[in-house]
Amino acid sequence: MASVVVSFSPVEDAEALWGACQGWGTDEKAIISILGHRNAAQRREIRQAYHHLYHEDLLNLLQSELSGDFEKAVYLWILDPADRDAVLVNAALKKPSVDYRAIIEISCIPSAEELLEVRRAYRIRYKRSMEEDVASHTIGDVRKLLVALVSSYRYEGDEVDLQLAESEAGILRDAIKDKALNHEEVIRILTTRSKLQLRATFNSFKDENGTSITKGMHNAKHEGFPSAVRAVVRCINNHKKYYEKVLRNAIEKFGTDEDVITRVIATRAEKDMKEIKDLYYKRNSVTLDQALMKETSGDYKAFVLALLGNQD
Amino acid sequence: MASVVVSFSPVEDAEALWGACQGWGTDEKAIISILGHRNAAQRREIRQAYHHLYHEDLLNLLQSELSGDFEKAVYLWILDPADRDAVLVNAALKKPSVDYRAIIEISCIPSAEELLEVRRAYRIRYKRSMEEDVASHTIGDVRKLLVALVSSYRYEGDEVDLQLAESEAGILRDAIKDKALNHEEVIRILTTRSKLQLRATFNSFKDENGTSITKGMHNAKHEGFPSAVRAVVRCINNHKKYYEKVLRNAIEKFGTDEDVITRVIATRAEKDMKEIKDLYYKRNSVTLDQALMKETSGDYKAFVLALLGNQD
Repeated sequence: MASVVVSFSPVEDAEALWGACQGWGTDEKAIISILGHRNAAQRREIRQAYHHLYHEDLLNLLQSELSGDFEKAVYLWILDPADRDAVLVNAALKKPSVDYRAIIEISCIPSAEELLEVRRAYRIRYKRSMEEDVASHTIGDVRKLLVALVSSYRYEGDEVDLQLAESEAGILRDAIKDKALNHEEVIRILTTRSKLQLRATFNSFKDENGTSITKGMHNAKHEGFPSAVRAVVRCINNHKKYYEKVLRNAIEKFGTDEDVITRVIATRAEKDMKEIKDLYYKRNSVTLDQALMKETSGDYKAFVLALLGNQD
Repeated sequence: MASVVVSFSPVEDAEALWGACQGWGTDEKAIISILGHRNAAQRREIRQAYHHLYHEDLLNLLQSELSGDFEKAVYLWILDPADRDAVLVNAALKKPSVDYRAIIEISCIPSAEELLEVRRAYRIRYKRSMEEDVASHTIGDVRKLLVALVSSYRYEGDEVDLQLAESEAGILRDAIKDKALNHEEVIRILTTRSKLQLRATFNSFKDENGTSITKGMHNAKHEGFPSAVRAVVRCINNHKKYYEKVLRNAIEKFGTDEDVITRVIATRAEKDMKEIKDLYYKRNSVTLDQALMKETSGDYKAFVLALLGNQD
């Protein structure tokens, strides 16, 4: 989001969005040029102004006029951040095979208070608690891990216990050695300790074993629980590097995964997308924008590129 | 807390408390007559005024001057409610055998937002998250139950799914029949469903089985996990009846359990103590005040009776 307008009128934007959806055909370009250059607070104001003018939710208008990946991206982009995360968790639970990565991202990367906001938004929107839905859509070890993650309210102060880090690094090492990442001590450590404490634990693991904990877990690389545990470690250790890899996989995948691309860009565009883009370029020797230009198409392409800060 | 003063001066109270602790001996009567008749907001103002006047926490003064059960009661009484609950959870964890009842009460009886306040207070006071400490001080089934309870943020709206209640009542019935209350489905249901939903489930259990779920669990009455599960059900079903029983047991116990009495009275005095007292009288044919007059003594007795609304 390099280019946000500074002076803007929510009423004029609302009217322009309404106008773009009248008559035959929809003016997607107009929609992109407006929404692609408004920050979260501005989008909220536009949605309010639209409601005031037309007594309807702007989302309804756009959902009826747009379609496919473009519609999904615009929809997620307009939502308030906590509400968007709630929608993403719910969507992840409704997939034929639960998309645990989305749930891990949303529960491990935001601050404790941000995660609480997501839980509040979830309760308002779905009339159930988030942990309730996670628990009833999952089973076994993944359930234990995910329910504990979405329920966490981690300590966020500076205090780190290095001795504890050392002893808990030992517990993780033994679990990796025994191929028992589902051990309840592993889940306890990863879901309750503060992120700073966990980073100290991961560092201690590296010091002791001469290899990073994610590399250490590499043997247990198959899908399912071990890969969920690895995602937790990576989200806590360095979520920007994690996102770079998620984008890389989504783009390289046979039949590009637009849902994943949308999720990452809608979630990070106003946060740390620039750094993720830098990491992407470093790792792939091609810019994220170039990669997306090649692998996506149509209005969707124009929209995500606008969110990445390209001028249209 | 029948008799709270209406017009009061926090500065005068702070000075009087200071005065009560000067010279030889402490004027406990003065302390009781002040603190026993001030509500939470007033106590907070007194503590602030004291700090302003003497550059010290009022708690330090009182802790250095008082002792035993009386000291503990005054200490808990002065704390803000969320902070008090945080202290109670921490104290419960530090007992030689973790006092799971206190943790169950504090995680099941308050509202979702009140529980979050306790988690915030815990983090500030102990520099760790509450679930982190619960997880590292407990093991096995009790750990699974308690960590999920203290992390919960239950839905609190009106929506109840009666069909779900029926099917989950069946799960609970099977678990009771199989003496497998530690089944992860039981923990999932009790720790994630809304309280209204759970009451519907408990009602459905009664309709189907002709007996209440707590009676149904009666066979598994021994201490430990089944009794923890029963406490959860009772706290959610009717916490006033639950507290009546807790007080009854604490009073009837050989060598009265002052810690429990203090916990209940300090926690409920400004909430629903009157109804708990009514239940106590109905069940025991003696008033709670009379029972405490007989079973407690000294300044402690005078203080808890003041909190129960007795004139001194």
